[in-house]
Formats: sequence, structure tokens, C-alpha cells
Amino acid sequence: MSQKRVIYLPLGGAGEIGMNCYVYGYGPAGKERLIVVDLGVTFPNMETSPGVNLILPDIAWLEERADQIEAIFITHAHEDHVGALPHCWPRLGAKVYTRAFTGNIARRKMADNGLPEDVVETVSAWPQQVEAGPFRVGFVPISHSIPESSALVIDTPEGRIVHSGDFKLDATPVVGEPFDEEMWAEIGKSGVMALACDSTNVMSRSPGRSEITVGPEIEALVAGAKGMVVATTFASNVARVKTLADAGERAGRSICLLGRAMRRMVEASIETGVLTKFPKVISPEDARQIPRENLMILATGSQGERRAASAQLSRGKYNGILMKEGDTFLFSSKTIPGNEREVLRIVNQFSEMGVDVVDESSGGHYHVSGHANRPDLERLHEIVNPRSVIPMHGEHRHLREHSRLAMAKGYRSALAVNGTMLQIGPDMLDVAEYVETGRTYLDGTVQIGAMDGVVRDRIRMALNGHVAVSVLIDEENEPLGEPWCELMGLPEIGRSKAPLLDVLEEDLSQFLGRASPATLSDDDKLEDELRRITRSTAQDEIGRKPEVTVIVSRLS
Amino acid sequence: MSQKRVIYLPLGGAGEIGMNCYVYGYGPAGKERLIVVDLGVTFPNMETSPGVNLILPDIAWLEERADQIEAIFITHAHEDHVGALPHCWPRLGAKVYTRAFTGNIARRKMADNGLPEDVVETVSAWPQQVEAGPFRVGFVPISHSIPESSALVIDTPEGRIVHSGDFKLDATPVVGEPFDEEMWAEIGKSGVMALACDSTNVMSRSPGRSEITVGPEIEALVAGAKGMVVATTFASNVARVKTLADAGERAGRSICLLGRAMRRMVEASIETGVLTKFPKVISPEDARQIPRENLMILATGSQGERRAASAQLSRGKYNGILMKEGDTFLFSSKTIPGNEREVLRIVNQFSEMGVDVVDESSGGHYHVSGHANRPDLERLHEIVNPRSVIPMHGEHRHLREHSRLAMAKGYRSALAVNGTMLQIGPDMLDVAEYVETGRTYLDGTVQIGAMDGVVRDRIRMALNGHVAVSVLIDEENEPLGEPWCELMGLPEIGRSKAPLLDVLEEDLSQFLGRASPATLSDDDKLEDELRRITRSTAQDEIGRKPEVTVIVSRLS
Repeated sequence: MSQKRVIYLPLGGAGEIGMNCYVYGYGPAGKERLIVVDLGVTFPNMETSPGVNLILPDIAWLEERADQIEAIFITHAHEDHVGALPHCWPRLGAKVYTRAFTGNIARRKMADNGLPEDVVETVSAWPQQVEAGPFRVGFVPISHSIPESSALVIDTPEGRIVHSGDFKLDATPVVGEPFDEEMWAEIGKSGVMALACDSTNVMSRSPGRSEITVGPEIEALVAGAKGMVVATTFASNVARVKTLADAGERAGRSICLLGRAMRRMVEASIETGVLTKFPKVISPEDARQIPRENLMILATGSQGERRAASAQLSRGKYNGILMKEGDTFLFSSKTIPGNEREVLRIVNQFSEMGVDVVDESSGGHYHVSGHANRPDLERLHEIVNPRSVIPMHGEHRHLREHSRLAMAKGYRSALAVNGTMLQIGPDMLDVAEYVETGRTYLDGTVQIGAMDGVVRDRIRMALNGHVAVSVLIDEENEPLGEPWCELMGLPEIGRSKAPLLDVLEEDLSQFLGRASPATLSDDDKLEDELRRITRSTAQDEIGRKPEVTVIVSRLS
Repeated sequence: MSQKRVIYLPLGGAGEIGMNCYVYGYGPAGKERLIVVDLGVTFPNMETSPGVNLILPDIAWLEERADQIEAIFITHAHEDHVGALPHCWPRLGAKVYTRAFTGNIARRKMADNGLPEDVVETVSAWPQQVEAGPFRVGFVPISHSIPESSALVIDTPEGRIVHSGDFKLDATPVVGEPFDEEMWAEIGKSGVMALACDSTNVMSRSPGRSEITVGPEIEALVAGAKGMVVATTFASNVARVKTLADAGERAGRSICLLGRAMRRMVEASIETGVLTKFPKVISPEDARQIPRENLMILATGSQGERRAASAQLSRGKYNGILMKEGDTFLFSSKTIPGNEREVLRIVNQFSEMGVDVVDESSGGHYHVSGHANRPDLERLHEIVNPRSVIPMHGEHRHLREHSRLAMAKGYRSALAVNGTMLQIGPDMLDVAEYVETGRTYLDGTVQIGAMDGVVRDRIRMALNGHVAVSVLIDEENEPLGEPWCELMGLPEIGRSKAPLLDVLEEDLSQFLGRASPATLSDDDKLEDELRRITRSTAQDEIGRKPEVTVIVSRLS
């Protein structure tokens, strides 16, 4: 048996939906030549990551091995696959390969961050393959909810691996290539060691629906609408954006794009030839001049994002456009779990404006998923016919279910969450090592570790409020003047009906009056005591122990 | 026309799902005698109300009119209807009327808060009526997801009002009285001025299903399970708890209740005679001794609450009980929008333990709603046949839809959100006034206004971090020593690769060195400048402007 090995290592995306980052390697253990597939982000939330801008995979393992990296491949331009590129690339520095549309978006991201665009190289679709050290990698077109999404065929000296990327099986995807079963069978025919496969929709038991099926219902809705129609979807879902725009045009409406991402994606699609026919678009300025029944707006913000166009429209005028009674707002989208509250806030704000909101609950089909449902996953397994199925792109429950499904059909499978390095062979799929992984926060302009304690302290202040305590100690180690407190995020008045501030300062003052010289001369001891008293007095007064910052200033 | 009037005023629950509080009044304008229907809470979340314990309706309007209040009526024992009672009662001080089960829960709440239990008086069901000033109020049994939920018949000198409370139409509710159409028709026959009606499920177009329909599927699931079975539902859904326990017993399993609320609700149900037959229950200690395939556990925490039994079990041993591979966990519940993230966290943790999770997505029916769907709402409208329908208990979108539905069928209707006072008459339904309303936070042990800024400051610290800055100024208005900073919730190292703390102190020190006597002698000016520099340096270093507390200590 050769000492060289083929490895698979997810650093993000396996055990979660988001921040995808997968590594493949070939070579002697520890000296493998590596390729990276995708560098994506996850979005922070107030509960677990307040104040954080973006969540990136922890790429420390890769950074230590930067000289072993042959190339980075990006399967498609969704944020959870390409969003971390500009933040991680400077630490890795390898060539980046993508198809044209993905490259267009990736280069914009590099430029936005002052990074070189020319490291992103555009590759043609399969059967072309890129040589990357011991690997030959090809981009195989497959449908998803963004143009030019691709699976990767990764040929290694030990055999072929197929990395599905995010995908669905769609014979009529509106934009892009229909699913080509023959080509896929051909790819599988020469023998596939392993299929690393999207698991997102493994719980959905019915076959997925084609993108084309939403067209007629959207068209009927727009044709029947009276006032202005505003529709939202992910801007990157260019096929949907086109379906919506076409429906508007057919109903005699002018099309206006609201939100930067919406304009950017349509622009990128036209630049790269993904989109050839798209209705003429008017500016928001011109839209204001048009009777509302002749207007159709496509807006960003289907997940309720506060600053996106949809949320802004729900709060009032945006770009001079104001929705009102009799207008229609369409969610051509699904709410991602965790975003319900934000989306419902918008729905209720529109309700207050008298705008009719149409969504999945309204009884029509205005959205289809971009991921393969269970029967479609089974179909891809059969067509590719790999020796092993490695579930990826899913929470633990998805990976587990996908793994069970594969094993029930006789495939080898392993449940490998982030950090689980697998060794792949024609007749093996074993855990090789466990690698430390985690999350990196882009916090302001700084990258910090999720476990550094910075965000934990912010959460504590949000839950407990904050007291700053300042005391002066003179050269003789005697308190000088009274202790001083400043409160933030705490009720003013507590149990004793006196201001909390006064009660705290009084208790601290009494303590200083009776404190021993040993305490007064020891900064640590003094701080601990002042903190303890502040917390205990606050607990007594307001039923809450605040975070406390103590500043002892000495005149010595 | 009499100068006296009948009024309806929602202070909570109209325009939201939660913190229900409705006021009815009769008398000369401004001098009405009042009754309060329900005093409920809403639950805080990290996004909008971090650190808050409970959200209560702002009852300032009622408190100012405490001497006009004849009585408080509680329709049922859900937290969003009775949870605010112990927190608001001391400010209102009126007699509280409930049915037996609700009273049992309400009295426990009063006792837990050191308040008199005997102000809660138990009333028999309709046709008994309580006299409360000009009102005669009766509790009419109607099904919901808790025992003894009641609609109220409120007879006023001008006519009858029906307040539906939370309800569904259920001919086979498992626990409690089946829907009695004849009795309801009788109530409507003498003429009803207005029906104030639950709107929660107005968007659900199919008729609701009966509680009894979940029994067979739950029974089949439990009968077929191999290892331990743990099921969760709202503890107050006593019918469901019974269905689950019965299913366990029939499968030869011993029943164990985990979580305080679960034991409390079963206890209250037995004490009040609501529940007559319930399987024998064993303690967690005894449960540990029983082979897992002979055990069925009913656990609190169907919404993923971190401290409830379900979440604890998903994290490891709880009360000595540890779930493992081959066990089954059943969600006999629906995830309330906004709780998805917490619930999915549990599901994934169980997945990691090898526990099979069964929920609505698994293809079976293990839950039915406690609220009337649209066709059932229409049926109640028809049976009660009021002149006006006042939608309540719903977000704006629900109230609006319910109002449209009623008007389409020829009823008078008004969309009255919290603070909208309606005047009700046999032939009128008009807005009388707008009253200022809002939310009160129970924050630790203190009640504060939602708009007081306290929680806003906590959110700011969570988003921006905090810096405490301390400077000493001597008797000559000269800085004494160096400025001192303490950081909380901020990255340690920024752009210049030096500690942020050092960069801040250096910049502040330079400022103090060049500050004019006018600035140094003016506390406000000095503080503003120190804050400005701190924020601008931080922005430069870490791309974030922190919250800043400045403490200037003067030796003078």
C-alpha cells in the first residue's frame, strides 16, 4: 500500500448550513498537496454574536500549510461559498478558479477589499479540467438558485471524487444548463471513489420542483394586481429575478430594481452572458413618475434584513417610493429558520400600510428550493454510483439522515463534521484525524476567534448592564474623596426608591471608610471588594448583578 | 342618546400575539366603571430586549383609574393571559375572577410573589354570572390548548358582548367540555352587540383538527419505539400530556414527568378535578432504575428554552437521565415563529447523541393547534351572530385579515390595535379615543418602561463594546498622571498591531497634553472630547465606535 493518501477535511459547512470550506489533499500524511473548495461566511445574530459583522471558518490549519495549497476552487457565488474569500485569501494566497459568473462576483469582492482581482481565474465548464498539483479539477454545470453553480470532478491519482456543491436536479432551470443526465452518467462510468454531497433538503420527501413551475403563478398574480407590485427574492437567484421581471413586463409594467445586490447581480449576469434577455430596467427616479399600476419593483431583503430595500419600504419612503393601500408585496422566497421574526415584522408593517402581502402561506407556489430533495439526492447517488457518499452542507441532523439514506442503499458513508479528516480510497472511507476547527469573527475590521471572550463580554453587558467604579487613593493609601459610579443599561431606581447610583456610591463609600490598610494598598484585593459590593448592592436593589469595571487611581 | 357609553380598549394583545390585556367600560365618558380581561406577559428576546425577564402591558392608564375598576377576569391560565397578574395586581388591587383550574394557577403565582391568594375567586361556568358594577360576566367553556379556557359573556346595560378568549371548536377535546353549539346559539339568540374574537389562525384556510386526532399517531409511534421515548409539549396542554401519558402506558411504559411546569400542571389538573384518570407517575430517581424501553418521559421545553428539561436532556444528563442512540424524542408541538433557532439547536444536539427526533416534518400528525382556523372563526361568527366583530389576539396582519373576513360576511368590524378605544353600541362601532400604551419590562426585580433607554444602552454595549476612561485633574486644572482605560467586549489588537488599550491611552494622553485650560476646567467639554477621541481612535484601529464612559476625578 502506498504511503500517499487522499484526504477530505471540512473546515466549515459540515454540521451547519453556512461558511462552507472543504479541503482535499493528496500525498504523504502531513505533506499532502491541498486544494480548497469554497470559502464562505455565516451571518451573525444578536443572540450568539452581537456586533459581529461576518462569521468566517477558522482557517488556521490551512494557513499553517499555505505552501501546500495548490489552488482554491469556488463552486458558486453564494455568500456562504464565496463570502470569506476576500477575508481569508490574504492568509492563503493561492490561485482562485471559478466559472465566469462566480468569477465576476469574486473579483468585485476582491476589488472592494483592495485585493488583486487577477488571482481569480475563469475556467470553462466540464469537460475542461484545471491541473492543480496532483489534482485535475473540472467544473460540471448543475442547477441551483444562482447562475453557473457547479459540481466539481476532482481526479486524484487514486481515483475520482465528485463534489456536488449546492445543487438541484432541474430539467428546466429558466437560466443556465438543464440537468444533463447523460453527461453525469458518463462522469460516473469510469468509477467514482466518493461523492461529497449537499444534504440541505434530505428531510424533504417529495421530489423537488423545477424553477419553471413558479412562472405561471407569478404571472397570474402580477397580471391580477391592481396597484404597485413589489417582489423580493434573493438577488442572486437570477432565474427568479428574470421570471419576476418577465411577469411584470407581460403585465405592461416597467421594471425597477431596488437594492444594490439586485442591480449588481443582474449586471454581473449580463456582463457574463448568463442573462441574454432581460426587460428594460428603469431607475427609481423614473419609477416615481410612473402610475403605480404600471410599475413592478424587484427589491432586496427577502429575509427581512433591516437595511435592505424591502424592510425600508415597509417602514416608509425608500428612494422616493412609497407603498400604500392596494399595493401588493410578494415574497418569492422561503424564510430561512431564524429569520422569522424579522420577516414577520415587515409583513405586519405592510399590513399597517394596507399593502397586501403574498407569500407561501397565501396558497400559491411562488418559490421553489435550490437544493435537491431526498428523492433527487437518491437519483444523483444512482447516476454517479460512487463507492462512498460523504454528506456535507447540512446541520448534523441532515448529515446523519443523508448518511443513513446512503448506507440503506448500500453505499459506504461516514458522518464527518467540521474538523473530521477522512481518508478516501477506492475501497476505504476512514477517519484519519481530528483537526481543531472553529469560527473566526470579522468584528469591525478585525478578525477575532469566536472563543476569545470578546463577544462573550458583550453578551454579558447586554444581559447584565454595566457599572464603572472609580476611586482615588492618596500617597498614604487613604481614600481621597468619594467613590464615583457611572451606570449604563441599568434601571435608575431600585427597591429602596432612591437612585441606584446613590445607593451604590453610599455602600462603596462605607466600605472604603472601614477598609483595612492591607486592602487599600493592594490593587487586586481592592478591586475585587469594590466589584463584589457593587454587584451585591445592585442585586439587592434591582435584582441583577451588573458587569463592573473598577478603576483605582493612585496619587503615588 | 344616553351620555353613558360602552367602551372596549386593548392595552395588550391587539397587534401582537402576547401580553393580552383588554378593558371594557360602561358609564359617562371618562368616568366609566371598568373591568379588565386578562393580564398576560410576552417573552423577551436577545434582539430587542436583552436581559429583560418578562414583558408586561403598560397599565399606566388603568392604574390612574384603579378606583374605577370593578374586577379582573382571567379567561385561561396561559402565561400570555395570566402571567402579568402578580406583577400588575399590586397596582390595580381589584378582585380577580377565574374558573377553578385557572384560579389554581393564578393563586400559585400570587403566592410565589408574596401576594394574597384570596383575591382570586373561583367562579362556576355559564350560565352563572358575576356582577361587577354595571356588568354581568359569565365564563362560557370553550376548547383551547389548556383546561377550562373560557369565553366571556359580558352583559352591559346597552347589550351583550361576547369576548371569545383563545379558542378552537372541538367536539372531542380529550379533556374538558366539547363544543356545545346549542348553548352558543342560545347565547347569541338574545342579540349580541359585539364579538371580540381570537384572530391567531385566521390565515389557516382548512378547518382545524380535533385534539383527539393526534392520539392514534402518537400511540403508534410510542408502540413502535425501541429505546426510551421522551416527548415534549406545552405543559399546560393537559389534554396532550394525557394523550402522551396514555400512549406510554398502553405501550407498557412507566411515565415520568420532567420539569417543574409539567409536574405543576398535572398537579393543578388533578387538584381541580380537570383530570380524573392519569397514569401513575414515577420519579426521575425511579425512572433511572427502569429499562429504557419501559420508560416514557414527558418533558418541558418544546420551544427550545435553554433551561427547560428538553434542552437539558439534549446537552447531557438531566436528573440522572441520559438519552442515547436508539432513543426517540417527540416534539408534540409547533415551533412558535422566532424560536426556530433554539429548537433546531436541540434537534441537532439529539442528532449528535444518535437520538431519533420526530416532529411535524417527519410526516405524522403529532400536534394540533389550540386556535380556531378561518372556517371555524366564520362558524363562530355565524352561531353568535353579533352586530360587530372586533378582531383581537393577533398581529396586525391577523387583525386586518379577520376584519376583512367579517366585513365580507356583512358584519360591522373595526381594526383596533393596542390603545384604540372603541365605543360599542347595538348599532355602532366607532373609535372613541386613542390611549397611550406600550410595554413595561420586568427587569430583574424592577419594572421599567420599554422606551426608557435602559435596554437600548444594553443593546448598544452588545453591538459596540465598552470603554471606561478615567482621568485625574489636579487643583490647578492640570492632568495628573496618565489617562487610564479599561475595555470590555473589544478586540485586543487592532490595525497598528499594538494593543488597542495602549493606542487609546497614548492618544488620550497626547490630547490632555495639548488641551487648553478652558477645556480642562470644563467637565462636560473634557468628557465630550475624551469620548470623541476614544471613539475615533477605536474606529481607526478596530473599525468600531465603542460606548464610552468617562470619569473625570478632580482633586479640588
